[in-house]
Amino acid sequence: MKDTLIARLTVEAFLAEYMHAIDADRLEEWCDFFTEDGTYRVTTRENADLGLPLNLMSCKGRGMFKDRITALRTANIFEPHVYCHIPGALRVTGMNGDVIESESTFTIIRTTNHGDMCVFVCGRTRDRIVLRDSRPKFIDRTVILDSRQIDTLLVIPI
Amino acid sequence: MKDTLIARLTVEAFLAEYMHAIDADRLEEWCDFFTEDGTYRVTTRENADLGLPLNLMSCKGRGMFKDRITALRTANIFEPHVYCHIPGALRVTGMNGDVIESESTFTIIRTTNHGDMCVFVCGRTRDRIVLRDSRPKFIDRTVILDSRQIDTLLVIPI
Amino acid sequence: MKDTLIARLTVEAFLAEYMHAIDADRLEEWCDFFTEDGTYRVTTRENADLGLPLNLMSCKGRGMFKDRITALRTANIFEPHVYCHIPGALRVTGMNGDVIESESTFTIIRTTNHGDMCVFVCGRTRDRIVLRDSRPKFIDRTVILDSRQIDTLLVIPI
Repeated sequence: MKDTLIARLTVEAFLAEYMHAIDADRLEEWCDFFTEDGTYRVTTRENADLGLPLNLMSCKGRGMFKDRITALRTANIFEPHVYCHIPGALRVTGMNGDVIESESTFTIIRTTNHGDMCVFVCGRTRDRIVLRDSRPKFIDRTVILDSRQIDTLLVIPI
Repeated sequence: MKDTLIARLTVEAFLAEYMHAIDADRLEEWCDFFTEDGTYRVTTRENADLGLPLNLMSCKGRGMFKDRITALRTANIFEPHVYCHIPGALRVTGMNGDVIESESTFTIIRTTNHGDMCVFVCGRTRDRIVLRDSRPKFIDRTVILDSRQIDTLLVIPI
Repeated sequence: MKDTLIARLTVEAFLAEYMHAIDADRLEEWCDFFTEDGTYRVTTRENADLGLPLNLMSCKGRGMFKDRITALRTANIFEPHVYCHIPGALRVTGMNGDVIESESTFTIIRTTNHGDMCVFVCGRTRDRIVLRDSRPKFIDRTVILDSRQIDTLLVIPI
């Protein structure tokens, strides 16, 4: 089988594990999906297209990931809700040694405690994933939302 | 290729066949996706988290599956509608001989005869699938809906 | 690994490339996903079930594909919007030499410039894909929408 198909399957399985961890509220595991100095940011398509630097969320390095989850667990006030991640079209855009670059579409259905469901966000991610060591990890993950607006706040990571 | 990747692909292809059968209204084939004494149930995340036993739908054994579809075809009164199943993140959570355990997110877009579309349900399934014989079959399938409420009734299986 | 699993992966990767090209507004590449005399049409489930011939969109041959995109770029007046394609359940329904027949569910989330998101369409595609030459191409692609109505117009291809 072609190397790109194998790489595609590996990324797909890794993204599925990531999404399940978040959707099942195992948020303390979030930082473990990144390398020690990994980066994560959420921006909008408008900002990305114009090359604007502002992010809706940005973390660099394990400490910031842990801070974010600690804040979510102990400080942030928000209406309880859960995500259902639906991964979309995945393409491998580059392979270099043990690093895979990929791009994928996604959508998230958000459900509140009352039972209201909505398409919360959709868009695309650009990921660089390293296969070194025992399991894959994000070197960086950029989430690019199609919409310029977020309904209420973005507290759970995407 | 790793065994878990092969198992993942096998489950993915099986779930796709299952979803197409339902979405194409080939509901009489539904029971054939289960073993002779297979079980199927639909519950909510709230119930699952609290360990509560109540199900929105529950079938055990071929007879109950057939009853359910006969009722749908001949007795139930409901507004005509179709499902579009969108499978989400799939992970293999266990392999034991010819039995695969998996967990996957999903959403269903429901469309009525008038043309109205909505996100009908989303959530996760926990499946045990046996590969014995000519094609895979569910030993049990548990559907866990993110929302505690269903818009009108749940008549077509998920 | 079984041939059908390999075929399924090949189709899945091809569809992902197609969806990314459209979602990223690389519409000039659209025609390159089809053979020289390839066909593309969009119809509704109601029409397909009744065997009615009317299509919402129909193209045959490269020239018509290019015309369509030229019209979109230069003549059509519509509110700016983007698609986020979410591929669904994919099944290989036939293999004959270097031609694969497949069927897949999908949904598209549409986002306008103002940031409004909605489930724009969902349904199923029936595709015939040829693997000859350097990359796969559609011989024909039929999109069957679950709903009988489209919100405003259908301008970007599905």
